Amino acid sequence: VSASPAPADERQVVSFGMLGYGFMGKTHSNALKTLPYIFWPGAAQTRLVTISGRTESSVREAATRYGWEKYTTEWRDVVNDPDIQVFDNVGPDDAHFEPTLAAIQAGKHVVCEKPLGDYAQSAQLAEAAAAAGVLNLACFNYRFVPAVRLAHDMIASGELGDIYSANFRYAQEWHTDPTAEFGNKTGALDVIGSHAIDAARYLVGEVETVSALITNPLTSPPRGEPIDTVDALAQYAGGATGTISATLIAPGRKNRLGWEINGSKGSVYWDLENLNVLHHHKRAGAATEGFMEIIVNEEHHPLVAPWWPSAHILGWEHSHINMLAHFTDAVVAGSSTVGPEAATCADGAAAARVAEAILRAAASGERVEVSSVV
Amino acid sequence: VSASPAPADERQVVSFGMLGYGFMGKTHSNALKTLPYIFWPGAAQTRLVTISGRTESSVREAATRYGWEKYTTEWRDVVNDPDIQVFDNVGPDDAHFEPTLAAIQAGKHVVCEKPLGDYAQSAQLAEAAAAAGVLNLACFNYRFVPAVRLAHDMIASGELGDIYSANFRYAQEWHTDPTAEFGNKTGALDVIGSHAIDAARYLVGEVETVSALITNPLTSPPRGEPIDTVDALAQYAGGATGTISATLIAPGRKNRLGWEINGSKGSVYWDLENLNVLHHHKRAGAATEGFMEIIVNEEHHPLVAPWWPSAHILGWEHSHINMLAHFTDAVVAGSSTVGPEAATCADGAAAARVAEAILRAAASGERVEVSSVV
Amino acid sequence: VSASPAPADERQVVSFGMLGYGFMGKTHSNALKTLPYIFWPGAAQTRLVTISGRTESSVREAATRYGWEKYTTEWRDVVNDPDIQVFDNVGPDDAHFEPTLAAIQAGKHVVCEKPLGDYAQSAQLAEAAAAAGVLNLACFNYRFVPAVRLAHDMIASGELGDIYSANFRYAQEWHTDPTAEFGNKTGALDVIGSHAIDAARYLVGEVETVSALITNPLTSPPRGEPIDTVDALAQYAGGATGTISATLIAPGRKNRLGWEINGSKGSVYWDLENLNVLHHHKRAGAATEGFMEIIVNEEHHPLVAPWWPSAHILGWEHSHINMLAHFTDAVVAGSSTVGPEAATCADGAAAARVAEAILRAAASGERVEVSSVV
Amino acid sequence: VSASPAPADERQVVSFGMLGYGFMGKTHSNALKTLPYIFWPGAAQTRLVTISGRTESSVREAATRYGWEKYTTEWRDVVNDPDIQVFDNVGPDDAHFEPTLAAIQAGKHVVCEKPLGDYAQSAQLAEAAAAAGVLNLACFNYRFVPAVRLAHDMIASGELGDIYSANFRYAQEWHTDPTAEFGNKTGALDVIGSHAIDAARYLVGEVETVSALITNPLTSPPRGEPIDTVDALAQYAGGATGTISATLIAPGRKNRLGWEINGSKGSVYWDLENLNVLHHHKRAGAATEGFMEIIVNEEHHPLVAPWWPSAHILGWEHSHINMLAHFTDAVVAGSSTVGPEAATCADGAAAARVAEAILRAAASGERVEVSSVV
Repeated sequence: VSASPAPADERQVVSFGMLGYGFMGKTHSNALKTLPYIFWPGAAQTRLVTISGRTESSVREAATRYGWEKYTTEWRDVVNDPDIQVFDNVGPDDAHFEPTLAAIQAGKHVVCEKPLGDYAQSAQLAEAAAAAGVLNLACFNYRFVPAVRLAHDMIASGELGDIYSANFRYAQEWHTDPTAEFGNKTGALDVIGSHAIDAARYLVGEVETVSALITNPLTSPPRGEPIDTVDALAQYAGGATGTISATLIAPGRKNRLGWEINGSKGSVYWDLENLNVLHHHKRAGAATEGFMEIIVNEEHHPLVAPWWPSAHILGWEHSHINMLAHFTDAVVAGSSTVGPEAATCADGAAAARVAEAILRAAASGERVEVSSVV
Repeated sequence: VSASPAPADERQVVSFGMLGYGFMGKTHSNALKTLPYIFWPGAAQTRLVTISGRTESSVREAATRYGWEKYTTEWRDVVNDPDIQVFDNVGPDDAHFEPTLAAIQAGKHVVCEKPLGDYAQSAQLAEAAAAAGVLNLACFNYRFVPAVRLAHDMIASGELGDIYSANFRYAQEWHTDPTAEFGNKTGALDVIGSHAIDAARYLVGEVETVSALITNPLTSPPRGEPIDTVDALAQYAGGATGTISATLIAPGRKNRLGWEINGSKGSVYWDLENLNVLHHHKRAGAATEGFMEIIVNEEHHPLVAPWWPSAHILGWEHSHINMLAHFTDAVVAGSSTVGPEAATCADGAAAARVAEAILRAAASGERVEVSSVV
Repeated sequence: VSASPAPADERQVVSFGMLGYGFMGKTHSNALKTLPYIFWPGAAQTRLVTISGRTESSVREAATRYGWEKYTTEWRDVVNDPDIQVFDNVGPDDAHFEPTLAAIQAGKHVVCEKPLGDYAQSAQLAEAAAAAGVLNLACFNYRFVPAVRLAHDMIASGELGDIYSANFRYAQEWHTDPTAEFGNKTGALDVIGSHAIDAARYLVGEVETVSALITNPLTSPPRGEPIDTVDALAQYAGGATGTISATLIAPGRKNRLGWEINGSKGSVYWDLENLNVLHHHKRAGAATEGFMEIIVNEEHHPLVAPWWPSAHILGWEHSHINMLAHFTDAVVAGSSTVGPEAATCADGAAAARVAEAILRAAASGERVEVSSVV
Repeated sequence: VSASPAPADERQVVSFGMLGYGFMGKTHSNALKTLPYIFWPGAAQTRLVTISGRTESSVREAATRYGWEKYTTEWRDVVNDPDIQVFDNVGPDDAHFEPTLAAIQAGKHVVCEKPLGDYAQSAQLAEAAAAAGVLNLACFNYRFVPAVRLAHDMIASGELGDIYSANFRYAQEWHTDPTAEFGNKTGALDVIGSHAIDAARYLVGEVETVSALITNPLTSPPRGEPIDTVDALAQYAGGATGTISATLIAPGRKNRLGWEINGSKGSVYWDLENLNVLHHHKRAGAATEGFMEIIVNEEHHPLVAPWWPSAHILGWEHSHINMLAHFTDAVVAGSSTVGPEAATCADGAAAARVAEAILRAAASGERVEVSSVV
């Protein structure tokens, strides 16, 4: 048997530490293990150094499962490890702010799940990251779905003309069951509404004012005060208007973030349950008179070329892999930011600001200037 | 040749007069001519006595075309004709109030296209009709689409449980063209938004408060001040919340009134461009775990039996035929109202009241109690 | 009251007699009553002279219901009536041949429901009609669905390029119930398969050879020997190949005639349950890279202008109204044929020939030349 | 920094060698690297020992890229390596037979891409594997799409009743471009038709007879004699009938394997471009009267639990990961076969036999018994 040893991968190595080992820990571990060979000969290898979490047995198992070199129940062990370049915070919502801030202050690049925290916390993270000069990413992963990116690029290039109207709704059903555990979640606005808000900002631009309604028909002690459903009206800096909604009590809607955007030259609509498809109508007379169903999975589409051939469709997790590949590339390239493609902590803060404006608007019944949230 | 003469139709005759001969005049004339043989052996024949309109050549041609016995350029000729039982007002918006009021005062049953007028006018029509004891119908014809009726019946019977969330949007594209003639139309809120409001009231119940945004990016003299896009938040008496929107500048949306309603036991969604289909999700464990696409065109479905066999689908005009058949039946039966199946002038007034609350909310930026509109 | 009498309709009158008063009698009566005012100022009025049928009480009632002047239980009364120009045969399948032949021989123009009869009978009707010089139409009404016509026109104009592949399937479910009455029907091939065959011929061209399979798992006395399911392979004169299928035992398929056609420059697909929509893919590089969903209901689309504005969608019955309007126009114009837009008796014969070739191919297991059926 | 080293993964290791490094090499390498942590605490780790291929620079790069320990241009190096338990053949079609046979004869378990070869070769592989007592898998990966598995399980459990009709079509467009490289591919029947045949056998059962048509309008030297389009009629052992088709010249169809299956108790349909969704109609009276759109991505669905929560949808590659996880489990468990869930070489042979029967039927024009192919 005369096979030769494989040459070593000579690419630069980006080393990661993680906080969290649950659903998102699995998602990001998978992404870090996958991106080096999918994005080839892209810029980097990844090294999974240390994973941290509260429950020792679980985090230890996760380390073995995903190939992390070490594990710890103290996230500060990750923050303080000079071997680690990136702190990837996929812990529970109440563990987003403090550890991420500490990591920034320790000079780590940071990746943090949404929501980063309330607006004040999120803004503090953004400022700290700017001061520290570290890369920082807020995990609004849907920016890295090819169909979403295509829509963004079409809008950015003027292909839809002036944007008139835009409607975003993220609907799930799991809270319809009144016995469903709600954990420490803060409700529809944070859990999924934040994604709708980032989609709105990413695709249409800054939200200037909001009006809002919030309901929680299924809420009662001991589940605290989560928000079941939120509906908001939004005015955008560019002149568009529309709705932003989120609900956890929509039977039959498993995981449906959906939006429609209408402009002077065309419209697009999309939803997460069928995430490979973008529907596009182009105003161009009779010859193109309906919505075109584009399976955004061709080599010439954004974010697709590294993957599979024509219409061998991608799944949900690929948005995270694409996002962390973008982040890793930025580390290697020494970029000053992961934006505008990825959301930064500043984007996370901007989303949190809109969310707080929505809370105020719902409470007061008045239209609220987002800039009034300080 | 020994064929026998057909026996005379012995059914009661309901005699109509009409104001208007355009798109809606065609629609209603067609309905009046069709319903007697489709709804067989239903209660009535129809007699098309006199059609009126402003332009003599046009109304004269319409009379010949649709088989009206007489024509006139004076709608008062219709109102004053003792042979006419029903005044069907399908004239332009600015001709809804006065002629309909006159017809009511003359003791005619009335059918009137939406919107009836502003809230004060609409309420006056409702009061006058009540005082006169005449049947009165506001042409919210989509109540008579079988799929819409099925959804209504499911909600009314509790099949969807408590209604949590409801979103309505009526989108068309024709005003995207800045050179489009806007005529005397008052914009998206009246032209199509009124249908969205009636759908909301019909399916979910009374709207108690609204917040709203209005835009008109394409408006400039000499087109007056129409509304291109309106988005509103609505709180319902039953506890549901959601959005009500209308736009005339959504490229690719030809005639799309769409809604989704989520309740504790299930969800439904529907749109007018594919009007025969109702999508229904029933919460009942794994066995029924997705949305069912129901072609509401079976004999056991509401409003379908008089028509064609299984999935020989209906079109848009059938909603009007069904509506006028219901009205004609009520005339023959001596009913005191055409509600709750059909919208009455009181429903038209209630819709106008919501519309005015939306205008106020948009202007003020505040949540407005619909009941504050007087 | 000073209304003026409506001027008389001065258009030429085309007088009809009918055989049959059931589902299709209702459909055609409706069409004859509707077409004069929809196709305005089109060429003709219609006069409904005599309706005939086997059961006196039923045909008498139908006469009153639909406004026929006279009724009779003897179709020969219709054939022999010199006042009648057109014999519209919508009777049961076993009453298609003889009465239609008699009508032709009496010099009537004829309309006949599909299937006209077996191939020999159909060919005889075609020959007789040619000899008599009368207009003759076989009721393949789906040629008059706007989306189908649009597809036809696109193919005929070369917009899809060379046609490579074409698949037609007509599926219904009603025979899945083993207790369903089958009447005198001859099974899936005649009842609905004939529509699939005509669609194939209309859109793709002449079928030269067929292979076939036939099954009837649900057939047993006393239901005779109907065909539940038929699948065939077809080679077309133009070089295309594909499948033609029909089944009455497809649960969930209410009334689904569907087809897909692939050519060198593009593809189209369509189905009857959503009949207003044509899906079209145009090969033209990245700019048009998916299927476009065209709601074929705009004024510039074929067959739509006489009806309603943008996306006020049509139903099933409109195909018959369009078809009989075309026929009536041809009578008035003194045309020599209603083809190629409408199917003639020659088309009916050609479809019957393909059906017989399918029967032979299924029985023999061999590929059969359609031209070998004589 | 006090993080602890991750405990070693104590699970059994299954060692792989591979032939091929292209599209499928990437797909299977990804699967082997992913399955150990997704299917946790499932039975095995995987070891990527040696990858082989014809072009040294490419295979060497692939080794580094995917983490294979060694590379070679001689597949016999893999076959002869005693450290390797599984030979995974994802090489070009003409390299399927001989290397796989050699691997079997060397006592390796084998995984082989479809088609295994012609019928004689495939049968020889099946026999050799049986004689050697090695596990063997033919890569009909679509059996491992959750929605396909769900359909299979429903049919197997009788939930659809007796199967009456089944139609399979795999359509792609890439060969429509006459300048497209066709490589050494043998055309639509092998490239994609084999998947349609396996789907037919997996879901409906053994095919007993076929009739067929084959066309190649775009074929000319120097591209050899590929098949562009094939359409076949199939009779199944269980009594069902239907069509099996494949085409490479269907513009707009990027990667559409689609099927519909009708039984006495219900129907299902599915397509690969939207692979997470199964449409199911259950005959059960009015309460369940339409097709239900099931997003087959819930924990209780087959093959989904190891992945992500509700409707965080999967992509195409997951079918391969699921398939190779199943295979790896069988190795660890010492199973005697990977069937019936996975396709074995015997299944590959059975599919090849149907393909040859189709070729004979197309050439002869006669219905061919599959069992006559020897």
